[in-house]
Amino acid sequence: MTKERLYLFDTTLRDGAQTSGIDFSVDEKIAITDLLERLGVDYIEGGYPGANPTDTKFFSEKRTQKAIFTAFGMTKRAGRSISNDPGVQMVLQSAADATCYVAKSWDYHVDIALKCTNEENLESIADTVKASVDAGKEAMIDCEHFFDGYKANPDYALACAKTAYEAGARWVVLCDTNGGTLPHEVTEIVNAVMQVVPGSNLGIHAHDDTGHAVANTLAAVVAGVRQVQGTLNGIGERCGNANMITLIPNMLLKKPYCDLVELGIKVEDLTELTAISRSFDEILNRSSNVHAPYVGANAFATKAGIHASAILKNPDTYEHIPPEMVGNQRRVLVSDQAGKSNLLNELKRLGVDADKADPRVDRLLAEVKELEAQGFAYEAADASFELLARRRLHSVPDYFDVLSFRTGVERRYNALGERVTVSEAVVKVEVDGETFMSVAEGNGPVNALDLSLRKDLGKYQSLIADLELIDYKVRILNGGTSAITRVLIESQNKKTGKRWFTVGVSENIVDASFQALVDSVRYCIFKANELETA
Amino acid sequence: MTKERLYLFDTTLRDGAQTSGIDFSVDEKIAITDLLERLGVDYIEGGYPGANPTDTKFFSEKRTQKAIFTAFGMTKRAGRSISNDPGVQMVLQSAADATCYVAKSWDYHVDIALKCTNEENLESIADTVKASVDAGKEAMIDCEHFFDGYKANPDYALACAKTAYEAGARWVVLCDTNGGTLPHEVTEIVNAVMQVVPGSNLGIHAHDDTGHAVANTLAAVVAGVRQVQGTLNGIGERCGNANMITLIPNMLLKKPYCDLVELGIKVEDLTELTAISRSFDEILNRSSNVHAPYVGANAFATKAGIHASAILKNPDTYEHIPPEMVGNQRRVLVSDQAGKSNLLNELKRLGVDADKADPRVDRLLAEVKELEAQGFAYEAADASFELLARRRLHSVPDYFDVLSFRTGVERRYNALGERVTVSEAVVKVEVDGETFMSVAEGNGPVNALDLSLRKDLGKYQSLIADLELIDYKVRILNGGTSAITRVLIESQNKKTGKRWFTVGVSENIVDASFQALVDSVRYCIFKANELETA
Repeated sequence: MTKERLYLFDTTLRDGAQTSGIDFSVDEKIAITDLLERLGVDYIEGGYPGANPTDTKFFSEKRTQKAIFTAFGMTKRAGRSISNDPGVQMVLQSAADATCYVAKSWDYHVDIALKCTNEENLESIADTVKASVDAGKEAMIDCEHFFDGYKANPDYALACAKTAYEAGARWVVLCDTNGGTLPHEVTEIVNAVMQVVPGSNLGIHAHDDTGHAVANTLAAVVAGVRQVQGTLNGIGERCGNANMITLIPNMLLKKPYCDLVELGIKVEDLTELTAISRSFDEILNRSSNVHAPYVGANAFATKAGIHASAILKNPDTYEHIPPEMVGNQRRVLVSDQAGKSNLLNELKRLGVDADKADPRVDRLLAEVKELEAQGFAYEAADASFELLARRRLHSVPDYFDVLSFRTGVERRYNALGERVTVSEAVVKVEVDGETFMSVAEGNGPVNALDLSLRKDLGKYQSLIADLELIDYKVRILNGGTSAITRVLIESQNKKTGKRWFTVGVSENIVDASFQALVDSVRYCIFKANELETA
Repeated sequence: MTKERLYLFDTTLRDGAQTSGIDFSVDEKIAITDLLERLGVDYIEGGYPGANPTDTKFFSEKRTQKAIFTAFGMTKRAGRSISNDPGVQMVLQSAADATCYVAKSWDYHVDIALKCTNEENLESIADTVKASVDAGKEAMIDCEHFFDGYKANPDYALACAKTAYEAGARWVVLCDTNGGTLPHEVTEIVNAVMQVVPGSNLGIHAHDDTGHAVANTLAAVVAGVRQVQGTLNGIGERCGNANMITLIPNMLLKKPYCDLVELGIKVEDLTELTAISRSFDEILNRSSNVHAPYVGANAFATKAGIHASAILKNPDTYEHIPPEMVGNQRRVLVSDQAGKSNLLNELKRLGVDADKADPRVDRLLAEVKELEAQGFAYEAADASFELLARRRLHSVPDYFDVLSFRTGVERRYNALGERVTVSEAVVKVEVDGETFMSVAEGNGPVNALDLSLRKDLGKYQSLIADLELIDYKVRILNGGTSAITRVLIESQNKKTGKRWFTVGVSENIVDASFQALVDSVRYCIFKANELETA
């Protein structure tokens, strides 16, 4: 059977921009366009020219090399001509190769939102499609509320789709705007639409309000639809859009999809998938979802338990795909149940040489178990684990010794009679026999300690210039007053973008935080030295 | 058509405990069991007695009121009798009502992992099921790798299912252990299994490695399966398990599921869903997923744009379900009446008199919204909320005024040359014009502050004699260095056993903690006074 070509339509920059808390600048849109081209989607919907200055500027020139550059707009208003509708004109006059105009396809919305007749709406659809074709741009129609509209008035919903197709639309896209439709209904309704528009001209646009954006999209593909819309990492309004990063490997690697369709992306291109997904989160300045299908840091991670030792022996039978295929990695988490083979595997991943016959490996394993019993969580703190392992198996200098520190928080009245809370810290360190003493104020005792620790580390100061703290997590491991506190710190090198995690555990929250801070700084120096000597 | 009963099997405490970074204590397992009973699941799988001390202790007594308390284990090893298999015995001798033993159903794993013959494995399945039934416990078999096993050797996979059923298993559960199966295959394979085991005895256990855990589960339900396994908020190994919080409303509210099956939970019980989901995240001490289907803070949020004004006019046509149905809220409205009626309900529940026509109620509502926007979480801090409400609507004295405090942590060498970390705090309070100054040492700055604050409150000292802190939780609300910290403190009266929660929010963790401490002490005095004057 010959496979049919399926087209990927990315709407990260348009529907994804509806995500609460996300606002793209023109520069960010350009960076995301580069990522999408690297991914290899067929269409990039860049926004809605005329709707806001960012989108208008973004569409002032062509922004894609390979993908079809697409502008979103609304179909012509009833009672005006195409040439008198400034919204339609902005899209037509933009630098886009293609247009995707949204049209109402639920008669109720035609009445209450457009306040025109059903016939006038069909006329708007036809006129807008023709105007796009006449302007030399590929024409698409997003049928808004298509599934709900079909359930309310199937004839009218079908008439909208048919009108768009017959007027010359390359794609008629069925949108589950409210996100409430489920796969069985999607299959049924797509089958009905295919009586009036061929599948090779139909698209699907799904939302995740019932957790089915990806499943609905694939159900539509099996039914015959040949364009799928989605966003990077599934961003989008409310619960998000269909996640392109999940859709693509599902269609390339899984049956029945891989037997039905072929994409512009090949299986071997998938090795970029994890990096692209994480780079997108970098642009959004947020942590990546560790549980994301295919690309999450935990997607191929197993906690020691009934599976871990078997995975090391026969990874292929415990993983649905090899992680390298999507550029991800296997991780058998070091935990209190870890065996020696898990530990060796982890050391190998981190690039720490270890010989399984070396008795120091056994001592390291015993120490890790002991520390995890105390509350250290090395599975979440790679950098602390790597430092510990290198210290025990090779030698890593401490670089600096903290002779003492003190930090205080004081609430008092200031000169204006206002109550203020002030935090200050003093840290005394020794580097190569020389003592450095620094003081800093901060938002709290830990912030003050961090600032004073990193203020002057003598000859190492230049190596930590780009170190910055990204996140700080506190967990009380057991209740009551003698609670043990675990602190996890995420740090990054501002220049290289590399991130690492460190851990500290103590009855004293400040002490636990300080341990994690010191590990982070030492790791940063170690990695900088390693680069220099490499 | 009569609906068939479908059973919910929750494995948050067993498979959910495989999530990286999650380790439940016995107390946490008890708290989560309470939440699951509130949700109304039919089975609670509490863990694996014998595998670790936590689970063994958890199963030392019956922990459920309504749900069937279920223990996980592994089927008997080949070559031993049931009575000589300590793993099987630990489960049989636990306080569980039901057992769920995992069995290999992929012949390849029988060979490489169990190293026994296919026939021996079938014998283990039959013997283990019979032993459970003989011990008076409902028996279930989790068929591990069922779908992959079926694809490799359908006859053997079916033989495992059939053997379990014929030996007396109430449920034979088809597990997609590696998570790589998709809905079309699930449908096909479940149909085949139903030739040997009735759907009313089949369960489904799905993982989210392709983003289809919920979709696969529902595909199996449509095919005829009548038990579904899942976890709260979809926690679990790798990408997680099927999300119970998404599955339940899908099955109760959406076609075709709601026409096929009925649950132990009714549609009207769903109003608790959002609160249960968020309470679980509180126990995990993590932020809730704002994009989660049904219960996410953004699940019914619309950003100003093409839909927002239309939603204000006709919310029903822009939302797939009314958010109140699942205890969630629409987030577009500037002021909503539901907010005020919720507030009045909450005041009534706490016994605070309020008149809905009183303008102070509106001012309180505005203040609560403002404070929640800053990060206060009043739904998790009843005592802080009650104090605030009573201050605004009636009058509650402050009892004492904190004039100043200071706390410090110092790490230094002691007289023996050892490094020690010492925390100390000084608090100055005024009670009825009299000043009391106290100092104390503690495990950390907050513990020291707590001890010195409660050391001498003059005439109120006797009223707080039985106050004790139970738990202390810290959450960083946004990353980076200028992070906002929220502290939740749980306190109790040692004598009466009454517990209460207070909250504090600040850029400074010590400041946030002190706010919550002061609220807790004031609440304790208020309640003691109330009792005396009652």
